Amino acid sequence: MTEPDLDLDLATLQRRLADFAAARDWQRYHTPKNLVAALSVEASELVEIFQWLTPEESARVMEDAETAHRVRDEVADVLAYLLQLCEVLGVDALAALDAKIDRNERRFPPDMRVE
Amino acid sequence: MTEPDLDLDLATLQRRLADFAAARDWQRYHTPKNLVAALSVEASELVEIFQWLTPEESARVMEDAETAHRVRDEVADVLAYLLQLCEVLGVDALAALDAKIDRNERRFPPDMRVE
Amino acid sequence: MTEPDLDLDLATLQRRLADFAAARDWQRYHTPKNLVAALSVEASELVEIFQWLTPEESARVMEDAETAHRVRDEVADVLAYLLQLCEVLGVDALAALDAKIDRNERRFPPDMRVE
Amino acid sequence: MTEPDLDLDLATLQRRLADFAAARDWQRYHTPKNLVAALSVEASELVEIFQWLTPEESARVMEDAETAHRVRDEVADVLAYLLQLCEVLGVDALAALDAKIDRNERRFPPDMRVE
Repeated sequence: MTEPDLDLDLATLQRRLADFAAARDWQRYHTPKNLVAALSVEASELVEIFQWLTPEESARVMEDAETAHRVRDEVADVLAYLLQLCEVLGVDALAALDAKIDRNERRFPPDMRVE
Repeated sequence: MTEPDLDLDLATLQRRLADFAAARDWQRYHTPKNLVAALSVEASELVEIFQWLTPEESARVMEDAETAHRVRDEVADVLAYLLQLCEVLGVDALAALDAKIDRNERRFPPDMRVE
Repeated sequence: MTEPDLDLDLATLQRRLADFAAARDWQRYHTPKNLVAALSVEASELVEIFQWLTPEESARVMEDAETAHRVRDEVADVLAYLLQLCEVLGVDALAALDAKIDRNERRFPPDMRVE
Repeated sequence: MTEPDLDLDLATLQRRLADFAAARDWQRYHTPKNLVAALSVEASELVEIFQWLTPEESARVMEDAETAHRVRDEVADVLAYLLQLCEVLGVDALAALDAKIDRNERRFPPDMRVE
């Protein structure tokens, strides 16, 4: 009997990250300014994987095991810094996204076809 | 009687974003290469809020209502593009982060004090 | 009789930017850390212009006068922050690039065909 | 007798970079879209050097020889991709910056003290 998803909600992961930083005395580095810089650096490491690829090649990156691992690793890093930023600023990432989708549904009616 | 968290899990928001793009015929723009570019642009819009602030000023950004709204909006944008990227690549963001924290706990024992 | 290129060398522009900042008392914002953040934000504003374009569309951006102006403006911003960074760090950008090309010519012999 | 600056103007370096790419058949990778992505990635590698530093530490990065080398190397990379972008788009980087400084001198009179 497995309970595979026990840790897998965002709030739990955010808590693990906060505990991880506290146990290593890294909170002093975690100013909002530093965390947004780190977030943008990790987002650029994702861009680096794709920068010379054609659109078609970019759609097949997960077929190569090593690249797939690298992509998942960078996705994790982006999410980690985003959650640590939310932690220090008191932002609820899920509520922020929920509100944003609501606004976009009003702003871009479904029959609008131009981005 | 309220059910405030009904939509507020990551998988549901990822599904809403996918439906949103499909209803507007925007999927053709959503190559992995384009989505990582958009993700990095949104991360930079977060950086822009903080770029001239001192560390101390950066810790107080949420005290100003307008800046707080802007921060939440950009956090939502980063998360939205990250989830859309995960959608097209078949990446489980929560599992990727869970695995990454496991690796980091082994790599950086808690008594290690240097970043 | 015109002397159109009188101001158009990099050292002169770097000097004009330094004088511009000094006259406005903006040097206190120009820590290396802040300037690299601003540089990356401007680079992302260039990315934003291209993020949803196909490779073919991206090759034609200068055909639209408004987009062409926007591209030149962002190129100027990137170069401006790069020169301001070089100013505060005492880096000679031209010498750094010259040395880098020398290294790359040794590292990637001309008959090497894979990036 | 030395002639140290013979190669050290921007136009000459831009020409060397174009010849370098042509000799390796790399031009096919050099779409404007790919080059702006590469530019932003290199800008982020500069950010990475500074991301956890205090403003004061960031002002002293050139005192460490290894970090100083890394900074000059990343400055060279940013400038290289900016010049390659200008090459493929037909943009004159120096003229663009000259025009931008002119506009900013009108937009921000010297007695304006707020950024």
